[in-house]
Amino acid sequence: MDRIMTFALAELDAGLIDDTFKGLPIAAAPVQLGEIGRLGWNLLKGDLPFPVAVLKTSAIDHNSRWMDRFRKEQGVELCPHGKTTMSPHLFQRQLADGAWGITVATTQQLRIARRYGVNRVIMANQLVDPQGIRYVLAEMKRDPGFEFYCLVDSPASVQRLAEIAKTAGVGRPLRLLLEGGIAGGRTGCRTIEQAAAVAKAVVAAQPHVILRGVEGFEGIIDGTTPEERAAKVRAFVDFLGAIAKRGIAENWFGAGEIIATAGGSAEFDIVADAWRNGDFGAPVKVVLRSGCYLTHDSGLYENRFHDIRKRAIASSALTKDGPKAALEVWTLVQSIPEPGLAFVTMGKRDVSFDVSLPVPIAWSPAGASTAEPMQKGYSITKLNDQHGYLRGPADSPLKVGDRVGFGVSHPCTTFDRWQLIYLVDDAYNVTGAIRTFF
Amino acid sequence: MDRIMTFALAELDAGLIDDTFKGLPIAAAPVQLGEIGRLGWNLLKGDLPFPVAVLKTSAIDHNSRWMDRFRKEQGVELCPHGKTTMSPHLFQRQLADGAWGITVATTQQLRIARRYGVNRVIMANQLVDPQGIRYVLAEMKRDPGFEFYCLVDSPASVQRLAEIAKTAGVGRPLRLLLEGGIAGGRTGCRTIEQAAAVAKAVVAAQPHVILRGVEGFEGIIDGTTPEERAAKVRAFVDFLGAIAKRGIAENWFGAGEIIATAGGSAEFDIVADAWRNGDFGAPVKVVLRSGCYLTHDSGLYENRFHDIRKRAIASSALTKDGPKAALEVWTLVQSIPEPGLAFVTMGKRDVSFDVSLPVPIAWSPAGASTAEPMQKGYSITKLNDQHGYLRGPADSPLKVGDRVGFGVSHPCTTFDRWQLIYLVDDAYNVTGAIRTFF
Repeated sequence: MDRIMTFALAELDAGLIDDTFKGLPIAAAPVQLGEIGRLGWNLLKGDLPFPVAVLKTSAIDHNSRWMDRFRKEQGVELCPHGKTTMSPHLFQRQLADGAWGITVATTQQLRIARRYGVNRVIMANQLVDPQGIRYVLAEMKRDPGFEFYCLVDSPASVQRLAEIAKTAGVGRPLRLLLEGGIAGGRTGCRTIEQAAAVAKAVVAAQPHVILRGVEGFEGIIDGTTPEERAAKVRAFVDFLGAIAKRGIAENWFGAGEIIATAGGSAEFDIVADAWRNGDFGAPVKVVLRSGCYLTHDSGLYENRFHDIRKRAIASSALTKDGPKAALEVWTLVQSIPEPGLAFVTMGKRDVSFDVSLPVPIAWSPAGASTAEPMQKGYSITKLNDQHGYLRGPADSPLKVGDRVGFGVSHPCTTFDRWQLIYLVDDAYNVTGAIRTFF
Repeated sequence: MDRIMTFALAELDAGLIDDTFKGLPIAAAPVQLGEIGRLGWNLLKGDLPFPVAVLKTSAIDHNSRWMDRFRKEQGVELCPHGKTTMSPHLFQRQLADGAWGITVATTQQLRIARRYGVNRVIMANQLVDPQGIRYVLAEMKRDPGFEFYCLVDSPASVQRLAEIAKTAGVGRPLRLLLEGGIAGGRTGCRTIEQAAAVAKAVVAAQPHVILRGVEGFEGIIDGTTPEERAAKVRAFVDFLGAIAKRGIAENWFGAGEIIATAGGSAEFDIVADAWRNGDFGAPVKVVLRSGCYLTHDSGLYENRFHDIRKRAIASSALTKDGPKAALEVWTLVQSIPEPGLAFVTMGKRDVSFDVSLPVPIAWSPAGASTAEPMQKGYSITKLNDQHGYLRGPADSPLKVGDRVGFGVSHPCTTFDRWQLIYLVDDAYNVTGAIRTFF
């Protein structure tokens, strides 16, 4: 591990978690983050308050090995999107597992990655804020080991970057990736001709900026069936590949490694399959950016993984076993005002609700010290800011004070609701804790 | 102001805001929270990064005066819901403006209120977590000035509280409010008979617990028209009043002040109107809990206020001028990949999307130092985690690098996305900053 990262993580571990952190036991004295795993706490034995967010380390370990196998079998690199977790300890874990770098979406996320010693960063976004542009250039100047990439999708954005880079005197060019997009989609050039115009602007602005490859994000593509979505994704990845091929043919990219990057957490198999033996006209480093594989989920990505398994276009490692859900939010039953309607201490402030609602997965009656799988027939039907509506059978054995654990759908929007998340083993012993920075 | 609050806020102001806080200028050195208003920063002059959240102090001042007038004219008390902002500085402002106390929803929010010196707290929720119950009792024992109320809606929850209170030796009873609810709604007793059973359990558990009044939350009630919703709200408030009346007649409440509390930020006029001259059979202190009046919004509560104005059942202060939206999120245009489709640097991580999407309200071209109202015809049609889809006319003058300011719908779910929010005057000069604790 890099020395700066080692030092910064040690500092983070030494930082005090006090009563301003949701999830710290009520009335606990401030405790160092790195000490939390040594206190003998257990979620089911009454040591933690509710609601509380936990990561199962067995699932994280499994997912980490799983992605490592996939990545190596496919011969691609992984630059996981850090925006999912924004957790320096998980960034470190991903880099230790062989990640090529860490992806970020904003200059704020970049600032956190840099603070915690990440040396190679793709900002999978336009870098537009003058403050952010100046910060990146200053970091590049200060640290020759800092390798940074950001996106461009218009000549205007290239000029904006080049103007500031020209006066910054970094001594090496700002590395740009040409973003391809789809009509009606998000950012990115809609046609190869538009991409060529952007590339021309970059070439004209050399040596302050340099084009190092192409980028796209297929995750915004939708379809009425998984097959339709997969076909549209494949077409988009082929479009990005065609931009890269044209760029190589027309010498848009500077000397050195050429990068093609796409692949969120839902269709990375299609990206790898399309590109690993791609006919680009020159060697191209394929970089996936999946951010959610490490924690997976119990909704969106669990469903998307069924599609991946069904497609089976990638390796056996993919189709045999898949990632497991690591992120859970645990709650107390606070009221059962009607038969079949319980309220749990978890609301919009605590858990994802943007894609689908949380999924009850485990139950531990008040006083028990073990959990069992949640019986069928329960679902969260609504969330208020601080309440969850849990519908179940009229003769449910649930009682006020029982604990119910939930899986989430779309980990990104649960991580950002917790600055403190516990690491637990399968018996819910707390083995550590991480911080997030949103 | 209470000495503990003065001290705690001074400590908060002395706290360092560093690069882990979203919204601090990129590459700024750490700065004390209380110093931020003296640095001469201006949002439009390039001093702040984007996205950034700001509160307009002119609107806050206006709203504060407005609610003060309403409260006094109606002869009711205000115990604003702190969950909206979770900002100790705004709690202090509300208490200085005459608020009776601060409402919270969770023990974590209570912990923050206590840390910052709030002495009277309604926890408008069941207190179920044994950790939380023990904490409340310990705080009551430690601080004789701490006045705490929480809800009960079942004999089981009363027994749970009473059992722990019995062994805590506080020397004064835990104050409970009997929660009324509606069928298919949230927590709370559905019938007067259920309420009577809960009251009986409280009386049986005296002197460890005591019933001090009734509580309900009408904000979850919906209707196909504003008139239908208002009628249902009025019926619910009357139901709560009937519980109070029965309780007074049957001597459920201990000696001393009896409290009736309801009233979120949408139908508080109906609550005040129904109760201020209520026939309860004894004097009752009416306590509203509106949390959103201080910042208001540009969506949900703006619409609800149109209904209040239309109903005009309350005082002239209500119907003449209403609260103004104080909370804005400012962004940069980062890409315009198609005519009429711009992307702004604001996503689900930065702004509310649970009720409706953010509303473009102001525009400041790149390089300008003033803002103008946003022209008609623009709307946010979608948010990703870190992107906003801004649709507008095909011949829009918007350019990459322009600044666009957004109002929000439902302030609660924007506040919790920012730990640092700037206070600004109408020219967007930064006059201060607050922290939130979620």
